Amino acid sequence: RINGARLWDSLMEMGKIGGTPKGGCKRLALTDVDKQGRELFKSWCEAAGCTVKVDEMGNMFAHRAGEDDSLPPVILGSHLDTQPTGGKFDGVLGVLGALEVVRSLNDLRIKTRHPIEVANWTNEEGSRYAPAMVSSGVFAGVYTKDFAYSRLDQDGKTLGDELERIGFKGDVPVGGRPVHAYFELHIEQGPILEAEGYDVGIVTHGQGQRWYEIRLTGYESHAGCTPMPRRKDALLGAARIVELVNRIGLSKAPLGVSTVGMLNPYPNSRNVIPGEAFMTAEFRHPIGETLDAMDVEFRKGVEEIAKAGGLTYDLKEVFYYEPVPFDPACVEAVRRAAEHFGYSHRDIVAGAGHDACYMARITPTSMVFTPCVDGVSHNELEDIKPDWATYGANVLMHAALEKAEI
Amino acid sequence: RINGARLWDSLMEMGKIGGTPKGGCKRLALTDVDKQGRELFKSWCEAAGCTVKVDEMGNMFAHRAGEDDSLPPVILGSHLDTQPTGGKFDGVLGVLGALEVVRSLNDLRIKTRHPIEVANWTNEEGSRYAPAMVSSGVFAGVYTKDFAYSRLDQDGKTLGDELERIGFKGDVPVGGRPVHAYFELHIEQGPILEAEGYDVGIVTHGQGQRWYEIRLTGYESHAGCTPMPRRKDALLGAARIVELVNRIGLSKAPLGVSTVGMLNPYPNSRNVIPGEAFMTAEFRHPIGETLDAMDVEFRKGVEEIAKAGGLTYDLKEVFYYEPVPFDPACVEAVRRAAEHFGYSHRDIVAGAGHDACYMARITPTSMVFTPCVDGVSHNELEDIKPDWATYGANVLMHAALEKAEI
Ligand SMILES: NC(=O)NCCC(=O)O
Ligand SMILES: NC(=O)NCCC(=O)O
Repeated sequence: RINGARLWDSLMEMGKIGGTPKGGCKRLALTDVDKQGRELFKSWCEAAGCTVKVDEMGNMFAHRAGEDDSLPPVILGSHLDTQPTGGKFDGVLGVLGALEVVRSLNDLRIKTRHPIEVANWTNEEGSRYAPAMVSSGVFAGVYTKDFAYSRLDQDGKTLGDELERIGFKGDVPVGGRPVHAYFELHIEQGPILEAEGYDVGIVTHGQGQRWYEIRLTGYESHAGCTPMPRRKDALLGAARIVELVNRIGLSKAPLGVSTVGMLNPYPNSRNVIPGEAFMTAEFRHPIGETLDAMDVEFRKGVEEIAKAGGLTYDLKEVFYYEPVPFDPACVEAVRRAAEHFGYSHRDIVAGAGHDACYMARITPTSMVFTPCVDGVSHNELEDIKPDWATYGANVLMHAALEKAEI
Repeated sequence: RINGARLWDSLMEMGKIGGTPKGGCKRLALTDVDKQGRELFKSWCEAAGCTVKVDEMGNMFAHRAGEDDSLPPVILGSHLDTQPTGGKFDGVLGVLGALEVVRSLNDLRIKTRHPIEVANWTNEEGSRYAPAMVSSGVFAGVYTKDFAYSRLDQDGKTLGDELERIGFKGDVPVGGRPVHAYFELHIEQGPILEAEGYDVGIVTHGQGQRWYEIRLTGYESHAGCTPMPRRKDALLGAARIVELVNRIGLSKAPLGVSTVGMLNPYPNSRNVIPGEAFMTAEFRHPIGETLDAMDVEFRKGVEEIAKAGGLTYDLKEVFYYEPVPFDPACVEAVRRAAEHFGYSHRDIVAGAGHDACYMARITPTSMVFTPCVDGVSHNELEDIKPDWATYGANVLMHAALEKAEI
């Protein structure tokens, strides 16, 4: 069993870096606080006897030697970056839970045949830089390093420059090496496990996602002097797209979801008809065909809205992956671990994207979920119970040991 | 007659301060470039033999002595501040046109019984600080100085502090002195005069306005894991309010207009359901009762939208004035001036708010409009023909001379 108190202490300690007054965390990827979080994590890993390597994407791997250290590692990990108004657990639990596994194996003097590595993946959230999980994506060969480096934040700063700025552009090549298995512990970020009273979730799939950026162009003019019929109001078009996106998600409920998270009208002045609007939209569904149908409906709807409003537009898909089935053997390893401890559990589909979704392309992969209070995540009030963290990390340890071989 | 070439040169010179690549102007109230514009204006006024006084709101008055300088002045003016993506003429034409009147009276050695003052009013646009025309409002006794000082911009800086920062918080008390008459030259900012081929517009009324700020609160949560029916999406509510505002304006067309110019969702992250949204809305109509009906419809609509979306909200009216009838004698003075020069003209209602709308409360007031290309304003492409500027300033001069008495 892992040491639940130590895990909780580490979670609270990390939560102070970028901590917000409401008890959440603002530790956006590649900011100064991300750097601080990474340094703390590194020091902990080294104190636990690991060698820490940083690859060219800033992904960090803390290596615990195996009895046969030439064998490919079992990697356990997640991410330390957060949303702008994020919580203390999303991602962090997976990284520090994996670190706790290593610490506990040290305490228990357990050696494994395969090495074990604790991973912290760069820019998982996708908030500062889209796409999400871009660095595990490069590791898995889904994106090129140059594509990832060229991603821009809202201030026009590239991911590559920011990685260099905080001193975490390492020299280890990204990926291209065998991985024996990958396990990720994460909070559910949805309401199911808590509502149904389960201790842990056995994640069998990740749902598919499609993310878009839309730029609408109308004509900026005076709010007081431009007759209604002469207007080309980019914000009115954007508002209709918000409604469209919502309608598409609703029509595919309960499984489908859809969201507009970002909307910036220009010049954003009270008495100016907005001449331009930038917005994002995203759709998710566990069934690939339904997700494709959402895409078709969306593109058709945007076309109609723009036409009716006299607007031109540019619509780009910036992120896409098909629904991901996790490796049946790894899923079974997680289930056996939960049963070993007598934890109540159910199978569940991951609503969020996770680094595991990309790792699944190159190695047998699965995930463990813990409940979270009221299903709330991407919110400063995100919360879990210490016991849930312990259960999850125990399951993670046993699943990992099965693959890493004692 | 005024010197059209000199007026045009001054307009172009002032347009360089805060000039944008597209040929527009970004000279927001109380910024460093506003300070620069004010200093240039002051130097020009002094070169024209005027004494420049600055009041506690930063309103600038360039005084040209009258034969009986104890008589109340005829004030001619407008504003030098612009929208974030504004043009070179909105406001500026009225200030520099008035200065050109003084320069021409000097050239022609014309003395007037009443003094003439050229005014530059602080923060007319209402873009950086709402309400618009706040400083002519204080002058006219509509707002208190403390109310005006406490206005906040988007960065939380107060109007009072910024006024002090740029060194334009003068020591002359605001208003409270007799004004013989007020005339304001302005571009129409709408399409009517140009479309119908008139040289100048005789402004008989200013339409009424109601401006609002709305803050919607829902619940921030994960875009991938929060089922559609559980959401409290503040941006979805805001989008519906954009549609509502547009519908209300359309139902009162052709005279009514309505606009949402500003919309900021929070945290504005691609994969977070927005938990909060801040937006503005404004309605305008030349008939007070219709404007009131728009207010009622709006409040009812917001209530329904919030309720349906599970949102709470805070709705504040931040700016209101009734339709303004200008002084019949001043309107006639403007008409006579236009006829004197043989300019084609029509009566027109001001779609925008102007400092004249507040000055009308304390002194006989009216306005002269010039056409603007394609009716475009609050846009960097805002444009007028040099002849239009000349016509307008000539009319301004003759109307002013009638009141100031030669
Ligand atoms: N786990 C998580 O919140 N990932 C961010 C990417 C997503 O929105 O699915
Ligand atoms: N003239 C002008 O654009 N004034 C700003 C206030 C308004 O929007 O009416």
